[in-house]
Amino acid sequence: MTKASVCTIGDEILIGQIVDTNSSNIARSLEEIGVAVTRMLSIGDDRKTIINTLRNELKNNEIVISTGGLGPTKDDITKDALKKLFGSNGYIEHSGQLKIIREILHSRGLDMLDINRAQALVPKGCEVIENRLGTAPIMVFRFPKERFGHDATLYSLPGVPHEAIGMLPEVIDDIVSHNPLSAILHRNVMVYGLAESALSKLIEPWEESLPDGMHLAYLPNPLTGVRLRLSMYGGSSEEEKTLVEAEIAKLKAILGDRIYSDTDDTLERAVGRLLLNAGKTVSAAESCTGGEISHLLTTVPGSSAYYLGSVTSYAVSVKENVLGVPAEIISEHGVVSSEVAAAMAEGVRKLTGSDYSVSTTGLAGPGGDGVNPEGTVWIGVSGPNGTITQKRNYHNDRRRNIERFAASSLDLLRQMILKDINH
Amino acid sequence: MTKASVCTIGDEILIGQIVDTNSSNIARSLEEIGVAVTRMLSIGDDRKTIINTLRNELKNNEIVISTGGLGPTKDDITKDALKKLFGSNGYIEHSGQLKIIREILHSRGLDMLDINRAQALVPKGCEVIENRLGTAPIMVFRFPKERFGHDATLYSLPGVPHEAIGMLPEVIDDIVSHNPLSAILHRNVMVYGLAESALSKLIEPWEESLPDGMHLAYLPNPLTGVRLRLSMYGGSSEEEKTLVEAEIAKLKAILGDRIYSDTDDTLERAVGRLLLNAGKTVSAAESCTGGEISHLLTTVPGSSAYYLGSVTSYAVSVKENVLGVPAEIISEHGVVSSEVAAAMAEGVRKLTGSDYSVSTTGLAGPGGDGVNPEGTVWIGVSGPNGTITQKRNYHNDRRRNIERFAASSLDLLRQMILKDINH
Repeated sequence: MTKASVCTIGDEILIGQIVDTNSSNIARSLEEIGVAVTRMLSIGDDRKTIINTLRNELKNNEIVISTGGLGPTKDDITKDALKKLFGSNGYIEHSGQLKIIREILHSRGLDMLDINRAQALVPKGCEVIENRLGTAPIMVFRFPKERFGHDATLYSLPGVPHEAIGMLPEVIDDIVSHNPLSAILHRNVMVYGLAESALSKLIEPWEESLPDGMHLAYLPNPLTGVRLRLSMYGGSSEEEKTLVEAEIAKLKAILGDRIYSDTDDTLERAVGRLLLNAGKTVSAAESCTGGEISHLLTTVPGSSAYYLGSVTSYAVSVKENVLGVPAEIISEHGVVSSEVAAAMAEGVRKLTGSDYSVSTTGLAGPGGDGVNPEGTVWIGVSGPNGTITQKRNYHNDRRRNIERFAASSLDLLRQMILKDINH
Repeated sequence: MTKASVCTIGDEILIGQIVDTNSSNIARSLEEIGVAVTRMLSIGDDRKTIINTLRNELKNNEIVISTGGLGPTKDDITKDALKKLFGSNGYIEHSGQLKIIREILHSRGLDMLDINRAQALVPKGCEVIENRLGTAPIMVFRFPKERFGHDATLYSLPGVPHEAIGMLPEVIDDIVSHNPLSAILHRNVMVYGLAESALSKLIEPWEESLPDGMHLAYLPNPLTGVRLRLSMYGGSSEEEKTLVEAEIAKLKAILGDRIYSDTDDTLERAVGRLLLNAGKTVSAAESCTGGEISHLLTTVPGSSAYYLGSVTSYAVSVKENVLGVPAEIISEHGVVSSEVAAAMAEGVRKLTGSDYSVSTTGLAGPGGDGVNPEGTVWIGVSGPNGTITQKRNYHNDRRRNIERFAASSLDLLRQMILKDINH
């Protein structure tokens, strides 16, 4: 198997100022094309350290991807280290990248300074993948076999996450076209509302009957549920695609509507797509989630087509006066109750005129209310065919409880819409 | 300077399934006590790799902190590698950790299985810091000087972030008490609303006049602004504290209310504290921020004391019917306008009866509205002494624009409350 190492360059990582999110993105992309990441490293902006570290990684891996160290002010250290490591006898200006630098500066109303122009310089002999998203070019150093006893390629990417991740597909394409990787077919389905152990028990017989060469991975995430990834190594012919699809169909038959998508990657996208296709609208009445459900729904581009708005009612007075929850329901059942969740959902649906609505009332913590422990939530969902409520308990800190409450609410909403569509 | 390496163990990191957030937290804590992190690594759950990697890091550093590899099912690989590396001739059961394991299982209504009990086993000769937050003990391996030519200590922490970060202070205390670190005084102030370059220009003369041994660091973050950290190496006597406080006072005189806190670390906490102290309440009317302002305000424990609620009005009908924004204001000035922002803020203040309110109307993207480009927001803030609005432009993707809009809104709200308090 082709091996890779991912290396982050920058003092700001070593003092804990920023969290490195590039490496996990790069690792995931490498894993999907069948390249094994052997390790990840973060090192400082020091010439000698950069040279020694990258040399060592190139000895042990066919592919090394570095990010960072390429800002206009730091440029000299990393680029000089790369030049030395590669054995270049000088720099050459890359006209394509220079053009991009000029355009970017122009769009921001800035003049080109010497430090900007210097970013287009690359060590002689390296190849360039033009960085359309920023000023620093992506440099590709292909080392001859003699150097490390095997073919070895070093990719140097900028550290800015949206540039590194945005340009990653072109780097991955270059890796695929230059390495003898066996093709892999991947197929994802997203599952919500089943613990990993329960899910595993349900699909165990199916998993054990998978044909040779097919492999299942569980990729759990508290907010988006479990991503089940079915992979088939060794080819991507039509025949193999059909085999994989047949297994996905069996999986769908087992899990039913616990699978929320095989295209989207979040519940809010899945809910949004359902609403968009059905031509329906939604609103929210949030108490303990404090705006998180609305925030999630509106992170989806185009959500204004189906999301009308919401009321966050932390104070009882807002529940009563804005959402119209009757005071006697609150005094009789308490704020954290099925009845209040239902009245909130119905209230905001009436207020906004939406087809569907979702509501939450609960205790994110710290602390319970004497009756309900911290981590309790009542979720309400209301639609053209009625209102339902559901109680959930979580055992996290405040912030994570809020996230879990919001994800569960979106899932309950999804189930109601799905049921209505299928009837 | 004492050197340290931070090492994450776990296949799940190498396939990009999870982002390692432990390492940056650990690095920040080490940097604050004057320990230099030379590098960070992530490696897989492989016995030989674990032994070789940790041995190499111990050769080059006085302190190595590893996280991960200690779950009940993986325990054997990492713990066995540590035993081998340390040269222990067996395991010993740690009664204190066993008691904690029993209590944790009991609180979840579970029986103790053999794999649970095995977590209390540690290699002979290692010291234990009891993990109060989880089942895996923190193991401390103190290697004699002969082994690596210098004193070297390996700390093995669990990988679960809330356990690793929650127990980190005790690990840091152990490092401080076992290493000849020079004392450092740190003092933070949080600044919002000034770009790093503008800030740097403003405080340059002050920075250049700092006494010897005092050092300023800029730690920028898009959501919380710039953390300015003043550090004094070499001691922590009363005299030195007075020196540092005198410099902080000068800094406050220069920056005025651009400094939002020298205790809190986020704008929502700073706003919350102001409201709490003043005995005032707040509400929000959000359009393009879609609930993010409310979400931020309610992530603060105890926020129900001052946060009443909010209306997210994506649809024009909700702006008109719930918030009472006059239709003619919208048709005359457009949805993204100073007038609509003001009317939204005033509307939600009236609706909820809050003392203050904050509103947003803008374009998070993708795409503008023909008049305003993507990234435009009008912010409104209303209070007992009137309503103000402000326009901002950002150039990020949708999600990050929403975050910037929300942070700027909280800052404008903070400024109004502050002005009222000071009059």
